[in-house]
Amino acid sequence: MKAGIVGVTGYSGIELLRLLQFHPYINVHSVYSSSQVGMKLSEVYPQISSLANYSLESIDIPKIANEVDVVFIATPSGVSSTLIPELISQDVKIVDLSGDYRLGDPAIFEKWYNHPGPRQEDLEKATYGLSEWNREDIKNSSFISNPGCYPTATLLGLAPLVINKKIDVSSIVIDAKSGISGAGKSPSKTTHYAETNENFSIYKVNRHQHIPEIEQVLKVWDETIPYVTFSTHLVPMTRGIMSTIYINSISDSITFESLYELYSTSYEDSPFVRIRDKGNFPSTKEVYGTNYCDIGLAFDERTKRITVVSVIDNLVKGAAGQAIQNANLMFGWPEDTGLQMVPVFP
Amino acid sequence: MKAGIVGVTGYSGIELLRLLQFHPYINVHSVYSSSQVGMKLSEVYPQISSLANYSLESIDIPKIANEVDVVFIATPSGVSSTLIPELISQDVKIVDLSGDYRLGDPAIFEKWYNHPGPRQEDLEKATYGLSEWNREDIKNSSFISNPGCYPTATLLGLAPLVINKKIDVSSIVIDAKSGISGAGKSPSKTTHYAETNENFSIYKVNRHQHIPEIEQVLKVWDETIPYVTFSTHLVPMTRGIMSTIYINSISDSITFESLYELYSTSYEDSPFVRIRDKGNFPSTKEVYGTNYCDIGLAFDERTKRITVVSVIDNLVKGAAGQAIQNANLMFGWPEDTGLQMVPVFP
Amino acid sequence: MKAGIVGVTGYSGIELLRLLQFHPYINVHSVYSSSQVGMKLSEVYPQISSLANYSLESIDIPKIANEVDVVFIATPSGVSSTLIPELISQDVKIVDLSGDYRLGDPAIFEKWYNHPGPRQEDLEKATYGLSEWNREDIKNSSFISNPGCYPTATLLGLAPLVINKKIDVSSIVIDAKSGISGAGKSPSKTTHYAETNENFSIYKVNRHQHIPEIEQVLKVWDETIPYVTFSTHLVPMTRGIMSTIYINSISDSITFESLYELYSTSYEDSPFVRIRDKGNFPSTKEVYGTNYCDIGLAFDERTKRITVVSVIDNLVKGAAGQAIQNANLMFGWPEDTGLQMVPVFP
Amino acid sequence: MKAGIVGVTGYSGIELLRLLQFHPYINVHSVYSSSQVGMKLSEVYPQISSLANYSLESIDIPKIANEVDVVFIATPSGVSSTLIPELISQDVKIVDLSGDYRLGDPAIFEKWYNHPGPRQEDLEKATYGLSEWNREDIKNSSFISNPGCYPTATLLGLAPLVINKKIDVSSIVIDAKSGISGAGKSPSKTTHYAETNENFSIYKVNRHQHIPEIEQVLKVWDETIPYVTFSTHLVPMTRGIMSTIYINSISDSITFESLYELYSTSYEDSPFVRIRDKGNFPSTKEVYGTNYCDIGLAFDERTKRITVVSVIDNLVKGAAGQAIQNANLMFGWPEDTGLQMVPVFP
Repeated sequence: MKAGIVGVTGYSGIELLRLLQFHPYINVHSVYSSSQVGMKLSEVYPQISSLANYSLESIDIPKIANEVDVVFIATPSGVSSTLIPELISQDVKIVDLSGDYRLGDPAIFEKWYNHPGPRQEDLEKATYGLSEWNREDIKNSSFISNPGCYPTATLLGLAPLVINKKIDVSSIVIDAKSGISGAGKSPSKTTHYAETNENFSIYKVNRHQHIPEIEQVLKVWDETIPYVTFSTHLVPMTRGIMSTIYINSISDSITFESLYELYSTSYEDSPFVRIRDKGNFPSTKEVYGTNYCDIGLAFDERTKRITVVSVIDNLVKGAAGQAIQNANLMFGWPEDTGLQMVPVFP
Repeated sequence: MKAGIVGVTGYSGIELLRLLQFHPYINVHSVYSSSQVGMKLSEVYPQISSLANYSLESIDIPKIANEVDVVFIATPSGVSSTLIPELISQDVKIVDLSGDYRLGDPAIFEKWYNHPGPRQEDLEKATYGLSEWNREDIKNSSFISNPGCYPTATLLGLAPLVINKKIDVSSIVIDAKSGISGAGKSPSKTTHYAETNENFSIYKVNRHQHIPEIEQVLKVWDETIPYVTFSTHLVPMTRGIMSTIYINSISDSITFESLYELYSTSYEDSPFVRIRDKGNFPSTKEVYGTNYCDIGLAFDERTKRITVVSVIDNLVKGAAGQAIQNANLMFGWPEDTGLQMVPVFP
Repeated sequence: MKAGIVGVTGYSGIELLRLLQFHPYINVHSVYSSSQVGMKLSEVYPQISSLANYSLESIDIPKIANEVDVVFIATPSGVSSTLIPELISQDVKIVDLSGDYRLGDPAIFEKWYNHPGPRQEDLEKATYGLSEWNREDIKNSSFISNPGCYPTATLLGLAPLVINKKIDVSSIVIDAKSGISGAGKSPSKTTHYAETNENFSIYKVNRHQHIPEIEQVLKVWDETIPYVTFSTHLVPMTRGIMSTIYINSISDSITFESLYELYSTSYEDSPFVRIRDKGNFPSTKEVYGTNYCDIGLAFDERTKRITVVSVIDNLVKGAAGQAIQNANLMFGWPEDTGLQMVPVFP
Repeated sequence: MKAGIVGVTGYSGIELLRLLQFHPYINVHSVYSSSQVGMKLSEVYPQISSLANYSLESIDIPKIANEVDVVFIATPSGVSSTLIPELISQDVKIVDLSGDYRLGDPAIFEKWYNHPGPRQEDLEKATYGLSEWNREDIKNSSFISNPGCYPTATLLGLAPLVINKKIDVSSIVIDAKSGISGAGKSPSKTTHYAETNENFSIYKVNRHQHIPEIEQVLKVWDETIPYVTFSTHLVPMTRGIMSTIYINSISDSITFESLYELYSTSYEDSPFVRIRDKGNFPSTKEVYGTNYCDIGLAFDERTKRITVVSVIDNLVKGAAGQAIQNANLMFGWPEDTGLQMVPVFP
């Protein structure tokens, strides 16, 4: 199959290119960019000069649809909603990595993103691509809205407990931490080395746009969930997300073993979700460069509170890797096709 | 006044030496070490070669008591409890930076520290040195047990709400993050550069020895508090702690302004606690190298949950700086004497 | 004395403010900025909210000259040369931290800076402020051009050998490395966290504007020096410069001891230059936050080559600290007045 | 083919395992360790729990030789020389990643390594595995001594100039910088996070054991080379080496274009060596996780000095990757078999 990457010069775009080199069935045919048309991609990223010699092409929808079988859109928020309306009428599979089509309600989108969202009719055509929990819909879809990085780590960590109604629904507190690459490739004060190195900060308290995305999915799983508290922090590192999740149990009889059993069973057919043994918790580097989501679990008998620790590489399982996983599902291949990387460690 | 530093080669010890260079009334007279007696301190730390030429002396209690007016003990856990029993009978003021005398109950100590604690009779002589909330006792004490780094950040963040009974007492969740210097100077897997750099990890889930220290103080402030959930993470940076604290409000009528008023009033006579304006949250680097504790506040109307963000430099307000602040109180000087550093930024 | 800081929001500017808090005779009276006039400085840097409450004032030369006794100019290259012509006719001492007045020849300036330099007549009024080697001129000057960060580390490392004519003059190779704060406060690809973290790079090979600055001073010391090779690298850290300098000896009879004697004697009256013992070399962190320049020395009998390792904190000895040292000299105070900080370690 | 890895728990060992997952013809059959026999490898490295379930086996030479076709030895210096004498008499191909068999002269070994080296007769059986310059010997060998990380970057950078006799042979100065993973997995002061983070240091000045390794190869290429000056620095990052090499040209007529031509031609059949265009220099992250060696070139007309900038990933091209490249050569496969990774960026 031939793939196109729109927005290849961003971090999710170049990661798609890196990962697709390992893919046995998908070949990156063309790469597109709005800002640097005509340049060689290797002028932007000299480290890929030994790959096929891509030139940045302009974003011409009919031409893209004609050239490729699947198009990955890795543009900043607000751009893909200018491309999708024309693209979805074409005969091409689409995986949109931006946030534009994740929220089903345009009013909620506008409230959290502070600008108008896409049309309702197009939203209804998008399938939310949390691979592990939406496989059948993804297989039957040709337009995937790829989940956000924080929601991926968080929802995979919460799903077994929420779906099985084991928790106090109003008690969910999610303390999330991310490496700086999550802020993208555009320089700013937030990404300025001297201000972020040897520093740990919190941002967008109670107003991160991933809050409604998480709540929307949780409500599908359990409509009684009223809200979550979700905070985001910046860690002085490039890649990696950890969501530390605190939930009150509704049962006293919970144990680590029962949690482990619940999670292992929930993910027994999910090659990328790995559950840790008792007393063992994942760190972000243990999934570095891979599509894994590693989960650690604890139940505290003193407080009757469950702690779930979920880590991903934000650019892989949180972006490009899950996008490929979704493409695999759409094409009917095993979902781990071309994604069997080993974490880069140390 | 003459000061002695026991355990000067550790990170809290060398930080005491650094900070006391600015102090107008305290002069470091002697430094002591169990492991490197006879060496010049500048052989261990060449960067202080331009200071007074200290030699490492052996730990001889009567000699120490004879030589100095105040002794700072900055040894690993388990060491100071071998020195204190003899020291407290001498005419010398003591500030113990280790955890040995923080917990009032030897049984609780042994449960969380996994080795026997000090004698009950000596524990009763120690004054817990959380400077901002225990000033009068500290002024009248000659033996201070300096608080832990995490408890300092956490308790300063919680105190106004707890003391004024504004919260659901069983709802406290503390997600704490620390730089690696908190693990001390002794090399280990945890502090190995290649394993901690570009990595974010969680450790001692539900079993960190600072949990009972935090709970002990909270119960003094509000005896109805049953427990807290407290998690600790390692950030790939050297210095800095952030405690992100989540609490359910018992009132719907709370606002940022009411929180700000409560905190500002609570700390109006505390030169080292600074409360941030609405929407502004501190990062760890903004207190780097100083004795400040900066606090940011938020109330989420959707969830009725309060978020408190409290940051310190773990080696200063979390160790050496608060120790000097306590010495200042013991000697009757303004508590910020010699501690008016400006954060090193960037 | 009253000081003013022009360009206070840059890294050298805020570092001047930090360091001058320790100064017994200089009080920062006013701070100036072209871009954010009217703002509180604590809105830009919340970490200094506990200091005097500075507002950013506009840059009005006669008003500045009227208000303060000394003005530190910490603006980007090209700005100070628009202020200096008017300022030098006023009765105020000036320390210019930018590169505008370091090169005596406007033609050389334009060649290396790629834009026209200041007027020759103003250049002639500037005194190059390498404190340790130009004390008498500095004392008699009222307009100091503060040296560049790399030239400071490099020239202090080379001076004893060059002045005493111990070396093959065409053999000097300087391999210099700097933390990222040297690139200033303005976000760019070069300072973007995700691109610089876990990365080591070289830049401006054979065309760094500090090359002619170094050569100009070396030629004053030994007119036979034809050129130097000088390379600059970016280290993934915030502060610190190391210059590793390689020079062919003209003598076979050189030893470490003779080098040590030469350097110790050369700097015996220089409180900020510290020479390391045999086999001991400084690292950048050992001068962190201070005005020290630490120097290590080696002579290799196999190759007859001398290695000099010179480290500074680029924002202190390489900028704000040396500026204050020069102000001390201009006012006739001991040059280390207010500069006796201890390195922040770890 | 079946491979065994001795010393799999070290960083080179685990990197071999990571890279060999991509290899189409080599399967890791067994892993060996002296210290943790019987443990599951996934207990040491939980991040590989999804790979084949390896148990650490004891180092039994005849059993190893019986089980596998090629054995990679990734043990600390001094260990492989206790295994090799027995191994080389077996019918198994050997790639030794340690330094034990790199120096042909036991006297030189002892001088630089400070302990006795292997037997002369065994040294003579080893083939030095600098793949690009020793292909024919490697193809015919069954015992490869894999080059050191610094020598690999340095020799690949120097080879075209030295072999073609373009330089002043006594002028070579190599300023090398490495990430901390080069120091291995054993915790020490050198690898302690709080001491290496935000720090840049130099070590083993004029006495690094890679100096004789570099000189030995250079003398093979040009026997008139008397020595090199070679310095090593520690960069606060995990992976990556840059060698910045300074050489005096013997010709005035050299240009960038002539250098580029020389290097491009020299490496036209070497898939892992990439030469940069004019004015473009590699950074370490641009080869992260891959077997590439990227080289940038400059000639300074002012000084007649050539600068060569050579970067590698120390754990890949500097260790595990080159080891696999050598195994590929020994087995007669294309040398890039299984090594076509794309750099992990950012």
